[in-house]
Amino acid sequence: MRGEESRGVEKLAFQDHYPDDLAHCFGCGKLNERGHRIRSFWDGDETVARFKPEPYHVAVPGYVYGGLIASLIDCHGTGTAMAAGYRAEGREMGSDPPLRYVTASLKVDYLKPTPLGVELEIRGRVKEVKGRKVVSEIALSAEGVVCARGEVVAVQIPSAMLPPDREPRPI
Amino acid sequence: MRGEESRGVEKLAFQDHYPDDLAHCFGCGKLNERGHRIRSFWDGDETVARFKPEPYHVAVPGYVYGGLIASLIDCHGTGTAMAAGYRAEGREMGSDPPLRYVTASLKVDYLKPTPLGVELEIRGRVKEVKGRKVVSEIALSAEGVVCARGEVVAVQIPSAMLPPDREPRPI
Repeated sequence: MRGEESRGVEKLAFQDHYPDDLAHCFGCGKLNERGHRIRSFWDGDETVARFKPEPYHVAVPGYVYGGLIASLIDCHGTGTAMAAGYRAEGREMGSDPPLRYVTASLKVDYLKPTPLGVELEIRGRVKEVKGRKVVSEIALSAEGVVCARGEVVAVQIPSAMLPPDREPRPI
Repeated sequence: MRGEESRGVEKLAFQDHYPDDLAHCFGCGKLNERGHRIRSFWDGDETVARFKPEPYHVAVPGYVYGGLIASLIDCHGTGTAMAAGYRAEGREMGSDPPLRYVTASLKVDYLKPTPLGVELEIRGRVKEVKGRKVVSEIALSAEGVVCARGEVVAVQIPSAMLPPDREPRPI
């Protein structure tokens, strides 16, 4: 299945497959005009997203705010979880029933200060897919240097978090 | 020393003591007009900050974006570290040489979905002060219910991260 996202003229990101009523996330929802709208893709067995922080995403002058780094790792992790979930079920991404994950836990190690003003690469590796849970390891790099490493434990969204007009079945 | 911030007419937050050239953090810098500008205070032996997310800080409808939760825990943790650092040295907050911390690692466990539309309380407890490192435990609550718990390992800012026109001594 891999590589299917890159064959079309328009390359769809993982997040383009989120159902519209679950596509408002500040980090990665395509329908959040104020948000980061990060977009994640398969790259072989790894996943990748790219993001250029704004000048105001600053920690101390010259360096990227750690909360943004955590946010990028978080959302790339839940996107990676969805992609891995579909792959584990042998299903096309976005097919019914939709899969959507939320974060159960997030760990970030800040290894080096992350320079502001350049595009960051966020690269994921699926560590475990087990039942409703996916664990991924994420590395965030600037100009080829890994500045932060994270681990995201994602779980399929609990039915209690679904919008009330949605079918109460698990998605 | 404790309680000194609450005696004046204007209550100063930890972050009000950050030197101006290190006060641009998107999460907690008083000079970042686009940022969250969170403000932290002592409350006995604990530290506390309050923050009401904006409607666009959404994860899925009705719930707060996990990246914002991580950001609040992160910045309240580094603020708590600074306050604890001064207290451990028996010094008044903001006195020279200034103390300023950055995050070495951040861990967040998302225990329950965090409701959007209410003020959140972020409460810290200093776990360890050792040399240039401070470890704090942070709980984030909504309406009295703990929704997330975090641990922040903060270290005094490395001199390489200081603005170039600043004295190269450790702060």
